[in-house]
Amino acid sequence: MSTKDHQDDLHEPEFDESFRQQFEELLKWRRDVRSFRSDPVDARLVEHLICLASLAPSVGHSQPWRFVIVESDKCRESVRANFEDCNREALKLYSGEKAHLYASLKLAGLRDAPVQLAVFLSEKTHHGSGLGRITMPETLEYSAVLAVHSLWLAARTHGLGLGWVSILDPVKVNRGLNVCPSWKLIAYLCIGYPKEDNSSPELLRRGWETTLPVGQVLVKR
Amino acid sequence: MSTKDHQDDLHEPEFDESFRQQFEELLKWRRDVRSFRSDPVDARLVEHLICLASLAPSVGHSQPWRFVIVESDKCRESVRANFEDCNREALKLYSGEKAHLYASLKLAGLRDAPVQLAVFLSEKTHHGSGLGRITMPETLEYSAVLAVHSLWLAARTHGLGLGWVSILDPVKVNRGLNVCPSWKLIAYLCIGYPKEDNSSPELLRRGWETTLPVGQVLVKR
Repeated sequence: MSTKDHQDDLHEPEFDESFRQQFEELLKWRRDVRSFRSDPVDARLVEHLICLASLAPSVGHSQPWRFVIVESDKCRESVRANFEDCNREALKLYSGEKAHLYASLKLAGLRDAPVQLAVFLSEKTHHGSGLGRITMPETLEYSAVLAVHSLWLAARTHGLGLGWVSILDPVKVNRGLNVCPSWKLIAYLCIGYPKEDNSSPELLRRGWETTLPVGQVLVKR
Repeated sequence: MSTKDHQDDLHEPEFDESFRQQFEELLKWRRDVRSFRSDPVDARLVEHLICLASLAPSVGHSQPWRFVIVESDKCRESVRANFEDCNREALKLYSGEKAHLYASLKLAGLRDAPVQLAVFLSEKTHHGSGLGRITMPETLEYSAVLAVHSLWLAARTHGLGLGWVSILDPVKVNRGLNVCPSWKLIAYLCIGYPKEDNSSPELLRRGWETTLPVGQVLVKR
């Protein structure tokens, strides 16, 4: 047994009921945030969150996530224009009451979020040597998604809100940010201090969708 | 403003430094577990974890995750045989030292995990009415992945380990568990009290892969 393992054994954490309750609060109060205050976010905190995200599980320890901090006006403007085009097209797919509701929803915080972070998958990574992803190659992609979720929860513990923008043409995002065309966009994230906090999703509060009872998503075999 | 919103405002949680440190410990000590003790897991706890997983973000509040608790010997045996077939095939893709190392790794806890849970995506769900997934339809799948990660972290707060088995033919899993062929397998999870705890991935400790420094996964634009 190596020294490293000994250290592991010594520091093994015990999570108590109080931590569990707060952790459940974190899961309940994590929201997709679209309205941000203009207060800046410390750049060291953003990098710290990326380090925490990198602790996410990944198939074969492949760590296929790649983070792009989007700072320049030119890059941000390309993403904003991309979103506006896609959102206009999306609206056309709804009619009547649903179209009215869709048009009234604020679906991205691209104008006000002080931090914008694009998360990509490096699909061609040799890291992990293919372990665990021969029959289910999509697990590589899922690994990058797990990193986004870790980052999301960690951001909330610091009082930061995060909004995942998916109404984007992913190929145009690569072009606009000038990143390797073989990288696959997983998520475009808006991050900042939220204008308000809520324990229920905005789409639920606004009447877009209802919450499914557990009985409808759980079966036994 | 509804009563619900008022309640939200009243209970808005503040996470302090002590909670943040423990949360970081949780991210560090969450492992993919393949060796379980035989102690049973309270069925109510399993259902509670599924409820917590269902708090995960989902595109358009679509909640496309479906959970199948796998209890019967017949179903479990079908998954075990599926894994063994796929693992035998996977081994053939490696040679030399890597093949030797692969063969020595324990890649699933399917024989000893007291709880087994399959997570599927209901791709045809109408929930969410398509919002947010026209240009990036894969976000529906990602939503189910986020639920798995919430469940994983929540399980660890209760001292439970979780192992994600991806060395499976997903179509055969649907057949073996007799679930709707249109459901897509996202993850097959082994859950139980772990035989040991570690703060570093087993694949790192066993020399399968190294950890990437943040400088290699982060760029600015």
